[in-house]
Amino acid sequence: MSSNGDTIDRTGQHLAVTTAGGDVRALRPIDEDLPASRKVFLEDGDLRVPMREIAVSGGEPPVRVYDTSGPQGHDVRRGLPKLREPWIARRIARGDTNLSQMHYARRGEITEEMRFVALREQVSPEFVRDEVARGRAVIPANRNHLECEPMIIGRNFLVKINANIGNSAVTSSITEEVEKMQWAIRWGSDTVMDLSTGPNIHQTREWIIRNSPVPIGTVPIYQCLEKVKGRAEDLNTDIFIETLIEQAEQGVDYFTIHAGVLLRHIPLTAKRTTGIVSRGGSILAKWCLAHHKENFLYTDFERICEVMKKYDIAFSLGDGLRPGSIADANDAAQFAELDTLGELTEVAWKHDVQVMIEGPGHVPMHKIKENVDRQMEVCHEAPFYTLGPLVTDIAPGYDHITSGIGAAMIGWFGTAMLCYVTPKEHLGLPDREDVKTGVITYKIAAHAADLAKGHPGAQRRDDALSKARFEFRWQDQFNLSFDPTTARQFHDETLPAEAAKQSHFCSMCGPAFCSMRITEDVRAIAAQKGISEEKALAEGMAQKAEEFREKGGSLYQSK
Amino acid sequence: MSSNGDTIDRTGQHLAVTTAGGDVRALRPIDEDLPASRKVFLEDGDLRVPMREIAVSGGEPPVRVYDTSGPQGHDVRRGLPKLREPWIARRIARGDTNLSQMHYARRGEITEEMRFVALREQVSPEFVRDEVARGRAVIPANRNHLECEPMIIGRNFLVKINANIGNSAVTSSITEEVEKMQWAIRWGSDTVMDLSTGPNIHQTREWIIRNSPVPIGTVPIYQCLEKVKGRAEDLNTDIFIETLIEQAEQGVDYFTIHAGVLLRHIPLTAKRTTGIVSRGGSILAKWCLAHHKENFLYTDFERICEVMKKYDIAFSLGDGLRPGSIADANDAAQFAELDTLGELTEVAWKHDVQVMIEGPGHVPMHKIKENVDRQMEVCHEAPFYTLGPLVTDIAPGYDHITSGIGAAMIGWFGTAMLCYVTPKEHLGLPDREDVKTGVITYKIAAHAADLAKGHPGAQRRDDALSKARFEFRWQDQFNLSFDPTTARQFHDETLPAEAAKQSHFCSMCGPAFCSMRITEDVRAIAAQKGISEEKALAEGMAQKAEEFREKGGSLYQSK
Repeated sequence: MSSNGDTIDRTGQHLAVTTAGGDVRALRPIDEDLPASRKVFLEDGDLRVPMREIAVSGGEPPVRVYDTSGPQGHDVRRGLPKLREPWIARRIARGDTNLSQMHYARRGEITEEMRFVALREQVSPEFVRDEVARGRAVIPANRNHLECEPMIIGRNFLVKINANIGNSAVTSSITEEVEKMQWAIRWGSDTVMDLSTGPNIHQTREWIIRNSPVPIGTVPIYQCLEKVKGRAEDLNTDIFIETLIEQAEQGVDYFTIHAGVLLRHIPLTAKRTTGIVSRGGSILAKWCLAHHKENFLYTDFERICEVMKKYDIAFSLGDGLRPGSIADANDAAQFAELDTLGELTEVAWKHDVQVMIEGPGHVPMHKIKENVDRQMEVCHEAPFYTLGPLVTDIAPGYDHITSGIGAAMIGWFGTAMLCYVTPKEHLGLPDREDVKTGVITYKIAAHAADLAKGHPGAQRRDDALSKARFEFRWQDQFNLSFDPTTARQFHDETLPAEAAKQSHFCSMCGPAFCSMRITEDVRAIAAQKGISEEKALAEGMAQKAEEFREKGGSLYQSK
Repeated sequence: MSSNGDTIDRTGQHLAVTTAGGDVRALRPIDEDLPASRKVFLEDGDLRVPMREIAVSGGEPPVRVYDTSGPQGHDVRRGLPKLREPWIARRIARGDTNLSQMHYARRGEITEEMRFVALREQVSPEFVRDEVARGRAVIPANRNHLECEPMIIGRNFLVKINANIGNSAVTSSITEEVEKMQWAIRWGSDTVMDLSTGPNIHQTREWIIRNSPVPIGTVPIYQCLEKVKGRAEDLNTDIFIETLIEQAEQGVDYFTIHAGVLLRHIPLTAKRTTGIVSRGGSILAKWCLAHHKENFLYTDFERICEVMKKYDIAFSLGDGLRPGSIADANDAAQFAELDTLGELTEVAWKHDVQVMIEGPGHVPMHKIKENVDRQMEVCHEAPFYTLGPLVTDIAPGYDHITSGIGAAMIGWFGTAMLCYVTPKEHLGLPDREDVKTGVITYKIAAHAADLAKGHPGAQRRDDALSKARFEFRWQDQFNLSFDPTTARQFHDETLPAEAAKQSHFCSMCGPAFCSMRITEDVRAIAAQKGISEEKALAEGMAQKAEEFREKGGSLYQSK
């Protein structure tokens, strides 16, 4: 991208970026949102893996957390530094034709991406390679997305989240979408999907990719539909492949492709409460019915694989028939499509192309686990990537919450990446605040899943924050949280004085009723009575309890 | 309560209600928050049980939902109509001394409260009586809370939620608290706990109870502590009993009592990350240590039972040692106290006193189920009433969400009532908006649990809303949701025109990409081709699929 307000993309198209000048607002500095944090790097030879280090007071060690925010302070008109340029150059120079991480992994080669990911996740590079070779994890990293800081998606790693952005024909501009991407990763989104469907679809994507340190996903059929002026029946494989290449050249890291919507599945949706709710799924269903032919994405799947491996783009096999309501959860249409996705997984793997499988949708809690169990079985443990699921239909306006419940659970059960849902779901396009709310809700879900899975180290941040809370280090409590400014603002609404940040209480209970303050007193009394905390509470008190038991045990006999 | 601005409460105390006049703001009319709704009544002889009926367009039947909002339009200075007055009068006239619902149930008597609840839950009165007699459900209904519309808490009924309100020494007025109560029940709170700890504690409670159609719970130890000027060590059974009677006379329906915090349990908290986080728990622990004696609430538990049965107040046995952090979840202190609560349950039941058991707190997802399983076992299936639990510690400002996840799950596992957590948890006293957010989050959790438990009829509202969504009946979608005004407002942010309420798309995807609109097309194509929806999609398509399979089955062979 040149800096004069125009840009040449990789396909040679000349794009006027007329909105590039004054329109590009910089996000406020990151430390205004995440105070007491600094970027540090884990190093391994030439690799530098970013982490965010949160300073903690009271003599406590700082806490390091996974960092998705990317390099800061760059001019969006120029894009981010091209971290992966030398790695890819070397591979191309030696004449590699299948550039997929899976291909290298299966040949026993540990790539820079694998080493980067290994440091980031604190595991061995060999483990990363094995998981990628096995297909149980993917590293989405298009050879042309040189700005990407590699990350891994798989159930033996930290649970990841995705934020969807993108304008529709109805609203929103390019720069707004770039800002939303930056905003989403500031709060911790691990990947971003650009779902733009309006005009400027190519240009919007170019800006996003050049400024994104996280993998970018798209749903190419949307752009294809623009090309055929919205007439689904005019779609065909050539237009699709042409569009894939256009987007591949730009650097899209994973493609959602609805190749599992088969003609024979469509009748299974006839009695559904909400029919087909996936945009891609409905487009393909329309095509199939109009031509009375099998889905061309399915019949020409191997042609698609050829593109994928050349650029190392991962499949995100779309669940075009996912349930859009509690009534439709886990039905025949959904599971028939899942079987087909399992079949396609094997085809992709034959080409060493990386695969994720998309999942629902709307599912009541008791039907969530079956989704993961079946997916693991029929898709041979390819990473599962789910939208929510929403555990009830009746709370539009709060679907970040209805889906956050399902997301936490499905993450625990083994889903590798959770696609966020914002409060605007079902109602309209999310704005910046919605994006933040969605991301933080999903960071909660993913972290809760990491804790429940017993991920080593996941609890460290909880422990540090809880210790700060117990010791009334308010500022530390804020800084260690997902959203320090909101936490601080909520606190300050009732106790704004700076002195209150040292108070041993808050407005919730007031000074006399603060349990934590009283616990301090309890421990002080114990100490005063010569009952030093651990020891005496453990000895003196236990002895007292012993006396009590000897004098008749419990006062009331259990039967 | 008299209407001249003064009030005489039942204990004979004369209370100047100086703030009664202009200060009392009426909530806006309920139909501004819940449009297209009207109150209807299920009738059984003299009983009239309120339901909310939501009108639906498109020839669809209206949807009836459980209604907690109570009689509308009454002057808060006069309080609500005394629904239960004749029922209680009859029992007192015949000389009953144990007025607990459990006592009647065990004698085989079906009370008006049981009949009311049976209609409300659409089960038989005999089933209600059996569950109450067995101790598996409670109907909190103080003989002096005549304004209360009976409700039931037990795992074989709809999952209930509680909202905490109450001022602290630091902030908030009486009328604000009454408004918060009304606000909480407007959005669906099934009970309300008044946790006031500041001045005017008695008067605030009086106003709340006289205006509350839902059971009111309190934690009497808070007022006791006020009486001994904050010196926990000066507490004793006499002050406690005196306070119980004062509150019992006013009509409190359930008391949280921390009788399970035993001297021998306190050492078990010594190594905890967050010590004792229950206000009541920390007060009792301080008392125990100061005197080096057993908790007087435990040693004098049967004296307390005498008060409870006289008024029919339910125990909510407090978990004073609940974990306040992920690190402390399911630890020895927590489960030791739970065992004691089980022992006390049996004592209470000996007196036919109704019992609920309070539960945590902070618990990671994989440790939630153990809480329910143990509680059911050691507390003999007495209803479990839990706070959250929060599934991670690191999101202050979003703890309605961290806890909503845990609440939905624990509700599914068998918890009967979920105590809400607001976004202000850990940070300050919730304001009105926080109360609403907390209540709606918990309505989501409770409803999700009802769905997952397979509660008959729970899915009806989901189905009606999803059908409206699929048919682009936007207004119905809003009206059937938990928060119609917010849903509508979110929709209107991007498509404000009234015409958009008839649009077959929204701003999220725009017209060309609306999957639901395309599904309509799909079904239209099917019809056009003589493939009438169900039939042909099920026959014509299936036949086509059959042909396809005959021509070689799946394109790619699964291994």
